[in-house]
Amino acid sequence: MAITITAFEQSPDGGKGLARDTRVRWALEEAGLPYQVRLVSFRAMKEPAHLALHPFGQIPTYEEGDLALFETGAIVLHIAERHAGLLPTAADARARAIAWMFAAVNSVEPPILEFANAKLLEGDKPWHAERLPLVADRVRSRLSQLAARLGDAEWLDGAFCAGDLMMVSVLLRLRASGILDDYPNLAAYVARGEARPAYKRAFAAQLAVNKPPAG
Amino acid sequence: MAITITAFEQSPDGGKGLARDTRVRWALEEAGLPYQVRLVSFRAMKEPAHLALHPFGQIPTYEEGDLALFETGAIVLHIAERHAGLLPTAADARARAIAWMFAAVNSVEPPILEFANAKLLEGDKPWHAERLPLVADRVRSRLSQLAARLGDAEWLDGAFCAGDLMMVSVLLRLRASGILDDYPNLAAYVARGEARPAYKRAFAAQLAVNKPPAG
Repeated sequence: MAITITAFEQSPDGGKGLARDTRVRWALEEAGLPYQVRLVSFRAMKEPAHLALHPFGQIPTYEEGDLALFETGAIVLHIAERHAGLLPTAADARARAIAWMFAAVNSVEPPILEFANAKLLEGDKPWHAERLPLVADRVRSRLSQLAARLGDAEWLDGAFCAGDLMMVSVLLRLRASGILDDYPNLAAYVARGEARPAYKRAFAAQLAVNKPPAG
Repeated sequence: MAITITAFEQSPDGGKGLARDTRVRWALEEAGLPYQVRLVSFRAMKEPAHLALHPFGQIPTYEEGDLALFETGAIVLHIAERHAGLLPTAADARARAIAWMFAAVNSVEPPILEFANAKLLEGDKPWHAERLPLVADRVRSRLSQLAARLGDAEWLDGAFCAGDLMMVSVLLRLRASGILDDYPNLAAYVARGEARPAYKRAFAAQLAVNKPPAG
């Protein structure tokens, strides 16, 4: 059945791959699934037709026959459950891979979101300069724990899985800040994710949408 | 196989049921599964034995035979996948229920966490009074969207499911702030969750741990 996802008509990051459609594109590429993309404007995202697909008016969404899904984690899990390459087959290892997916979005991403919000939404506030280091410390606290767990391993729990896809995607949001460079094993982990052919195809596909016109 | 979860020896909320073990207890009660609880101190949570179970040094964890899991969302999903009562059986409805689980932890909980952090970690900062309403507005923005989607429905998508369990649990964190009262359909939704016998048993069980000694 044909798969259609939505993505920004113009990504706020200008094509750095940080919009969440990249996570879904990556999962689809790992699974070897063709997909179509419907681009939506910021205005259209808040209109009834899109809100029926995504109650929070965001991208990506996922449509496949009668199924409409929102939430990147759920979409990636849906793909991973149905196609080889993103979840181990052994039951316990599969449950642990899903735990890393939730860890990415519920333990690691929240402080990173708070750090992003501090810059994006409060960059002009009088408290910004004094507050930002506090928020950065909360990010560092999580990264230290994650770095300790990863150690010298290539991936979080055995072979590459949907948990790594989500975690690498979350960590990528930090690259521009330089914070990631303080954790060499995490920086190398993220680089391993980016080096995967499926990631490269996903990145190129989102960049093609967001590339400024030549000339 | 026997199930053992971990919980705070002394919950920071003093037994209001907001610690995340309540979510797992609730899922276990909905599924009708007996479980044991191992209480851990704040100090023990940061020691190697617990960090081996939970890389971020938190509760709850879940042990069942050889399987050890962390992340509440993953634990609830693990229970929901194996026992009736928490996920629809039809494939599309099941995928949507999981989408609501991710929505709870990745779209609704992050602004609520930021609001909680503003009070807990920055309540003594000079910017606190001016900043708190901004953070509250981010919470309201999400709640408005969630309230619009819920409408007059009893649960988020058909029958009660793990997505509702997670969403109600996330929204409960807001009760003390009074923000929830501005969204009557969400407040009623949360009350329906709390009225479920399984929730009541879960709440009572965590309260029994945290009750101050009589006298």
